[in-house]
Amino acid sequence: MRYASIPGTLPQHRFPAHPWRLVETEPDLVDLGVTETLFAIGNGYIGMRANATEGRDAYAHGTYLNGFHETWPIQHAESAHAFAKTGQTIVNVPDAKLIKLYVDDEPLLIGEADLESYERAVDFAQGWSWRDVVWRTPAGKRIRVRSTRMVSLAHRHLAVLTLELELLDGSAPIMVSSQLLNRQDGEDEYHVPAAALGEGVDPRRAKRFSHRVLEPRLQVVDDEHAGATLGYRCANSGMTLACSYRHQIETSCEHEVETTVEPDLAKTVITLDGVANAPIRITKYVTYHSSRGVPAEELADRGEWTLRRAGAAGIEALRAEQRQWMDQFWATSDIEIEGSTADQQAIRWNLFQLAQASACTNEQGIAAKGVTAGGYDGHYFWDTEIYVIPFLAYTNPEAARKLLRFRWHMLGAARQRASELSQVGALYPWRTINGEEASAYYAAGTAQYHINAAVAQAIERYVTASGDFDFLASEGAEILVETARLWADLGFWANNGDRAFRIHRVTGPDEYTTVVNDNLYTNVMARFNMRYGARVVKWMRAARPARHATLCRRTGLTDDEVSRWDEAAESMYLPFDSEQRIHPQDDAFLQLEPWDFAGTPSERYPLLLNFHPLVIYRHQVLKQADVVLAMFLRGDQFDLDQKRRNFEYYDPITTGDSSLSACVQAIVAAEVGHQEPAWRYFLHSLYLDLRNTHGNTVDGVHIANAGGAWATVVYGFAGMRDSEEGMSFRPHLPESWSSARIRLVRRGARLEIDLDPKELIVRVLDGGSLPVVVDDEVVTLEPGQHLAIPSVTD
Amino acid sequence: MRYASIPGTLPQHRFPAHPWRLVETEPDLVDLGVTETLFAIGNGYIGMRANATEGRDAYAHGTYLNGFHETWPIQHAESAHAFAKTGQTIVNVPDAKLIKLYVDDEPLLIGEADLESYERAVDFAQGWSWRDVVWRTPAGKRIRVRSTRMVSLAHRHLAVLTLELELLDGSAPIMVSSQLLNRQDGEDEYHVPAAALGEGVDPRRAKRFSHRVLEPRLQVVDDEHAGATLGYRCANSGMTLACSYRHQIETSCEHEVETTVEPDLAKTVITLDGVANAPIRITKYVTYHSSRGVPAEELADRGEWTLRRAGAAGIEALRAEQRQWMDQFWATSDIEIEGSTADQQAIRWNLFQLAQASACTNEQGIAAKGVTAGGYDGHYFWDTEIYVIPFLAYTNPEAARKLLRFRWHMLGAARQRASELSQVGALYPWRTINGEEASAYYAAGTAQYHINAAVAQAIERYVTASGDFDFLASEGAEILVETARLWADLGFWANNGDRAFRIHRVTGPDEYTTVVNDNLYTNVMARFNMRYGARVVKWMRAARPARHATLCRRTGLTDDEVSRWDEAAESMYLPFDSEQRIHPQDDAFLQLEPWDFAGTPSERYPLLLNFHPLVIYRHQVLKQADVVLAMFLRGDQFDLDQKRRNFEYYDPITTGDSSLSACVQAIVAAEVGHQEPAWRYFLHSLYLDLRNTHGNTVDGVHIANAGGAWATVVYGFAGMRDSEEGMSFRPHLPESWSSARIRLVRRGARLEIDLDPKELIVRVLDGGSLPVVVDDEVVTLEPGQHLAIPSVTD
Repeated sequence: MRYASIPGTLPQHRFPAHPWRLVETEPDLVDLGVTETLFAIGNGYIGMRANATEGRDAYAHGTYLNGFHETWPIQHAESAHAFAKTGQTIVNVPDAKLIKLYVDDEPLLIGEADLESYERAVDFAQGWSWRDVVWRTPAGKRIRVRSTRMVSLAHRHLAVLTLELELLDGSAPIMVSSQLLNRQDGEDEYHVPAAALGEGVDPRRAKRFSHRVLEPRLQVVDDEHAGATLGYRCANSGMTLACSYRHQIETSCEHEVETTVEPDLAKTVITLDGVANAPIRITKYVTYHSSRGVPAEELADRGEWTLRRAGAAGIEALRAEQRQWMDQFWATSDIEIEGSTADQQAIRWNLFQLAQASACTNEQGIAAKGVTAGGYDGHYFWDTEIYVIPFLAYTNPEAARKLLRFRWHMLGAARQRASELSQVGALYPWRTINGEEASAYYAAGTAQYHINAAVAQAIERYVTASGDFDFLASEGAEILVETARLWADLGFWANNGDRAFRIHRVTGPDEYTTVVNDNLYTNVMARFNMRYGARVVKWMRAARPARHATLCRRTGLTDDEVSRWDEAAESMYLPFDSEQRIHPQDDAFLQLEPWDFAGTPSERYPLLLNFHPLVIYRHQVLKQADVVLAMFLRGDQFDLDQKRRNFEYYDPITTGDSSLSACVQAIVAAEVGHQEPAWRYFLHSLYLDLRNTHGNTVDGVHIANAGGAWATVVYGFAGMRDSEEGMSFRPHLPESWSSARIRLVRRGARLEIDLDPKELIVRVLDGGSLPVVVDDEVVTLEPGQHLAIPSVTD
Repeated sequence: MRYASIPGTLPQHRFPAHPWRLVETEPDLVDLGVTETLFAIGNGYIGMRANATEGRDAYAHGTYLNGFHETWPIQHAESAHAFAKTGQTIVNVPDAKLIKLYVDDEPLLIGEADLESYERAVDFAQGWSWRDVVWRTPAGKRIRVRSTRMVSLAHRHLAVLTLELELLDGSAPIMVSSQLLNRQDGEDEYHVPAAALGEGVDPRRAKRFSHRVLEPRLQVVDDEHAGATLGYRCANSGMTLACSYRHQIETSCEHEVETTVEPDLAKTVITLDGVANAPIRITKYVTYHSSRGVPAEELADRGEWTLRRAGAAGIEALRAEQRQWMDQFWATSDIEIEGSTADQQAIRWNLFQLAQASACTNEQGIAAKGVTAGGYDGHYFWDTEIYVIPFLAYTNPEAARKLLRFRWHMLGAARQRASELSQVGALYPWRTINGEEASAYYAAGTAQYHINAAVAQAIERYVTASGDFDFLASEGAEILVETARLWADLGFWANNGDRAFRIHRVTGPDEYTTVVNDNLYTNVMARFNMRYGARVVKWMRAARPARHATLCRRTGLTDDEVSRWDEAAESMYLPFDSEQRIHPQDDAFLQLEPWDFAGTPSERYPLLLNFHPLVIYRHQVLKQADVVLAMFLRGDQFDLDQKRRNFEYYDPITTGDSSLSACVQAIVAAEVGHQEPAWRYFLHSLYLDLRNTHGNTVDGVHIANAGGAWATVVYGFAGMRDSEEGMSFRPHLPESWSSARIRLVRRGARLEIDLDPKELIVRVLDGGSLPVVVDDEVVTLEPGQHLAIPSVTD
């Protein structure tokens, strides 16, 4: 892969290493957009970018609610039949983070203020963020200003913000204007020069609306609690929203409070007679409720209940709950390493992003950027199934289950989409929020039929990890039938003698080669999808006959059809070059012209922003290596020699322009014994957002890559694999670390896996037993037992 | 091809056959849009749809000026690097056809009027159209109303309309309101129910603007001539326009005239005291001048000169000139047949369309619909080079030369476009008016690199027919160098042993399979383009050294580069299936799944409006057979056995959804001895617009197909082929005809070619000699001499 150098850690003078926190000791406008993302907090439903409490300066204000979106008709410059029709874009909802501070009528503005001290942090152990400054006001008075933010991981609709003030030198009048501001999707968003946003159009950035999205529906003042409510309805999608807040003010200082509302602004102004050394704490409880159509008034009632409960509990209790949630999270998800505090910090930051993206999704998806920004319009892709669900399956299986149920809910739309594409079964949309295909460029969108198999793969992964056969026999089976069915219909029997089953004109995960015949990844995954579907149906027929009968009734399934899946899978054509003993990415891939890597300066990457698609498609150049991904996901379909040869063929021609690339290359590099690139690519994955190596961290955290960083440690360095039979390991600890400890859960058994340079020790802590496959033998570990597996040598 | 049945002739009860006219004896609102197209008149610069003189009823009002267009930024739903940026759409200019008539204050409206007689005609011999009615007014008075329209073929900017009136029964007040109306692109265009326009979006239909396109710049009344001028400027493109008219009124009746102007309407109201049997003739001289930027005032001056000259000449002289132009046209272009007056009419109608599309283009292109409507946004495609220039080269070589000079003018933009696509040389835009690529769907647009070779092909055809080696050595050579250069750069040397030169990820003319590797058509044509380029450069080096030096200086050409073209051409990879002995359309074509023709009901054609592109691309199904086209254009690259086998393979899987399909299938069917389909497909070509068989004649005449109908007679039935060596013939007259006579010019020699069932006789009338190749011998015919060639037998 094009990642020749090793990315450094975070610059320590500004972001000192800390095992449990990301810390910033100096504000800087230059990377404002990046730090807004890195310090963002969320719970998978509510997401708040780390904008300054005062509102300015901001790269992009952002508050998002998972799935809360506006729709718009996609205008194709040149349309054709069954092109995607409904654009969907996550809405930047009214901003409740705004708490403006004035001392002696002078505003605090971080970018201009005379600060004696500054520290900002997000704490992975406690689950919240803070900013501490000591400000010398223009009048020369010093005031300590501490603001904290927490999006509750336990209470889906709740966020709690505080502002703590203390005059250090003398008295002063203080005004606090705590707001809830609807910016109508960012009209005042960009305070940074346009040049800093880069030239040209980046299709990965979210759409800007030209119409008024949020129609005001409700404005209420709650004087009793120094609070207010604003309600809205999206102009096109009809989705509704209510946001409320209330305050608690704790201080010995005299103060007055006044709350006013307008359609796009609710404001509570707190006027304080500030006295030296008399602390002031203002707590702002915020709630967001959204719906596909429930009136804003009803959502406001729900918000009232949320706030009432939160206010009664109080901030300390809520923080304790948050801490408890995080403790539980780390108990099953932590990766603890020795050897680099910076790497430790980076690992936990990534895991924390996964927690923040998945805690409260309920039965919604996880957007490509979680709830940290509007990049990719807030759409759900295959990212969740391939890169995030494995992590959840082994750390928080309930969250994985909900994500899969979300796909099950989407089956109706997917059946409809298959029909529009002249196929039977179900075809999941390449990108969507509401279930409809939203990809306006089919070559790298709808043509990625492989998303169907990604859902099947995630089901298998989840069931293997969790043992949830009830899910498999109900929602899981229905998905498997409809997806397998699509593959059987999409492919065809080539009648040129060899009776091969082929799949044409599809795009694999590598978007630098599109609409090809017999993409290896797709064919391998489709084969798995059909085989797994057939196996599950046959298992149900034997073991769950009532469920089987229901399934057949619901889907019109017959034994005949299942046999056809097996037949197609058995005869699936997989391109193979017997001379080089590698698998071509697609049937014609090896006939393409080599890319002139030597003649491509680094500023022309990513290629997609610098070359017409036809130029890219014409060459052997990859955005991500999908043959390599297939070898990871369906590793039993390749022997080690093939894996090594394929890796060695594809790695040099992979640009890694996709953020999904580094982790997969790392995992397979580790498997085939290329430890140096495995480590290098892992670091690229680990620091992708922290070092903004793809240049678009401003548009949100690459959540799939965060899952990939976890996967690289677990599948790559520990060499973990799992199946019905049991877990196995091929450990190899990176040289930079002296040890690593991984926490996982498998079918209720909580595991602790310790790696050191010599060996891996897997230990069952509690909750169940663990079958471990060692040299083709299965050893079952009971709670308290452990087993050592020697490291592989290069 | 899917055209199993033979289309009938025009329904004789309403459109009686006439060898020199298209005649309509009954108005009908049902096919209003079609007849507006069929009876349209134009001269290749000005085009007027055959809307009723009274304005109503209309399917679509239309007056077009070749190349007069508005631009707009193309909004891609999902954009990528170097996607086309500038949309270009021909503008529907102010309508001067409007002459409203009121008798006793009652308006004449053809759709509602009590008509004693009705006849509408367009006359191919005279070159103008008329409508004669006798109207019984609501007051019971009969009046003869004759309106005529002529767009001058001799004077580019001039149209002349007349209204002749005669009260047959008694006196009556008559009001004539002669107008010039800017409808702002059709706000009141559609008077037919929306349902009649068909459902969904047809990408072939012209864009509707959302902004005001024509900004008023000038309004002038010319009371002396009962005339007025309106001037405009296009809001985005900045193109300017002036339209003027003046009237001559000839009558013994008392009358008054008043002219008024507003920004979007100039109106001359003529109030007449009509007297029985006293004829009234109102002649309206109309002029249009447009420019890329000359102020409207200056254009108005030019219009003034045009009108002054026209008024001085008078209508009879102008009609005589028109007649003379048509005489000259038919003297070199006519195809006269015996055996079917209906077919004769249809042939001449098609030839007349070619005349109307090409007479006064000057150095502009010919749009897909000529100047008959705004279909395909008035864009120029490869249609001109492949389907129209052959006709012009043998009938009006000066017109062909101007079209090629138009491409030469476009070289700058084409070089720029090549560079955007990371190539050297020039890449012509797939569709354009102003030279910039306007195709918003690259898979069936920009990827059609073969347009480069189409220009080269047209140059060869023109030079062979005209002997214009001066053009070849200047404009021609520069085009050939830049296009050959692109091919050499676009393709690559496959390093898999066989040293083949391959061209990947392009789309051939068949748009039902896109972005493929080694499209046979493209590779054959690219090979020709490079070989021809090399040959011309070498000829210039020897025969035109000064020109050669200039060429090398202008283009940076070296001998080395020319050798590389020859090498690449020599080793060009042409897919060939040695088992079936056919040429696959592209390298992977034969591996595609067969299309289920039996399961596709006729209402699902054209497939492009009923299936997602991926579904179409996945199957062996063609919009037009491009292998067959290659066999026609570069016939010497295939032996007869290959031609027959290829034809027999592709014909059954060709839908003919492209209007460019029928004529090519017909020509090659004739060549390989399949006379029945040759005849059937010819009739489909001949009656394509007249019978509206593609359902979109409302959007304009398919000009390329008109050229194809001519080509089928000349290349198909007469079996004419031509080269530097001389002309050859393989005649076979269709059984339905007893004879056919074709007029052509070759290098100044005017030819008359007579076909009868037994033989073909080619005769040189005057102007030069003709080499004829007979049995590999060249016989040279001098003026007055003739030669007989026996028909081929089946």
